[in-house]
Amino acid sequence: MSVLPPALESVIETLGVLPGVGSRTAERYAYYLLKADPASAGRLADALAKLHSEVGYCQKTFALVPKGQAISDLYVNPSRDKTIVAVVAEPFDILALEKTGHFRGTYHVLGGLVSPVDGISPDQLHIAELIKRLDEDKVKEVILATNASVEGESTALYIQQQIGKRKVKISRLARGLPVGVDLEYADQITLSRALEGRTLL
Amino acid sequence: MSVLPPALESVIETLGVLPGVGSRTAERYAYYLLKADPASAGRLADALAKLHSEVGYCQKTFALVPKGQAISDLYVNPSRDKTIVAVVAEPFDILALEKTGHFRGTYHVLGGLVSPVDGISPDQLHIAELIKRLDEDKVKEVILATNASVEGESTALYIQQQIGKRKVKISRLARGLPVGVDLEYADQITLSRALEGRTLL
Repeated sequence: MSVLPPALESVIETLGVLPGVGSRTAERYAYYLLKADPASAGRLADALAKLHSEVGYCQKTFALVPKGQAISDLYVNPSRDKTIVAVVAEPFDILALEKTGHFRGTYHVLGGLVSPVDGISPDQLHIAELIKRLDEDKVKEVILATNASVEGESTALYIQQQIGKRKVKISRLARGLPVGVDLEYADQITLSRALEGRTLL
Repeated sequence: MSVLPPALESVIETLGVLPGVGSRTAERYAYYLLKADPASAGRLADALAKLHSEVGYCQKTFALVPKGQAISDLYVNPSRDKTIVAVVAEPFDILALEKTGHFRGTYHVLGGLVSPVDGISPDQLHIAELIKRLDEDKVKEVILATNASVEGESTALYIQQQIGKRKVKISRLARGLPVGVDLEYADQITLSRALEGRTLL
């Protein structure tokens, strides 16, 4: 005999698919929504129902755009420099870089990273489209803004090979000590990268 | 200029109301749902839309029941002893006690705990209904299964006073060492409770 009403069980079960959400967390979320103003669960339901039908991908940069919009606002914006392209793995990486307020170029979303373990090969990523952009937009610099992981590094290497002998500057994000972190607490790999990449004063 | 499509922003914003979910976690959930099979977000949307319209409260025990059902299955079940009532703060506490498989009585949900700080007074809880049940069901024992917190203890004390001179056994859950916890790691209050409540062998 079930202790909880089926409608509540199904909320708990469907919330349980979210990353890092176990049954206890899902129960907590569901009970919170049940005790809260009904409009709160309603708003979430409406927002979720529209998620897939109203979000699309930019055909040029593969950033997230409102469905029906072909090209992302960041790309068409005349104040953004199309000759500098930051290559990122996922659309949310754009958000992180935009928050810095220090980048005036455009983006290119790969849609993942090369990962033989997860069965992701380079041809599943938007690398061919990036190479096409190099010529179309007369790109001067490609910034490889992938994670400092094995997948991030090998994807960056692959893209570097694909760009080949084109007259394009290729850079990548600096590796080093995060701001605010004490030297004694930094891990060895970060510290050796910080040494390698030391800058002259 | 917004970097994310409005439909995605609104999912992130509405997920952000959940307890313990900040904007980064909400972004992670939203992006997971966007990348996953559209049916997954659809199922969650459907389940949430039905949550408030299909979940109600038992008129007797205030446990959660499918809307339209007056009395909870646990209460009407003839194999459950109506003369033993476990008093709990929230409906999910029933789930925790049922999982033990060691309780054959019935439940009474208070709907919270007395808490002057949060403005919750005893008359906002289902205490009057509990007192009514004592006579109706000829209750022999009330188990005060509230949390071992200040609010839990004071609510238990208040209920004890309300039961007054009725011929009803009043018990509460044992306080002591959790199973599997080493004595040296137990906190002082738990340990003094375990000493006070020691049992003869």
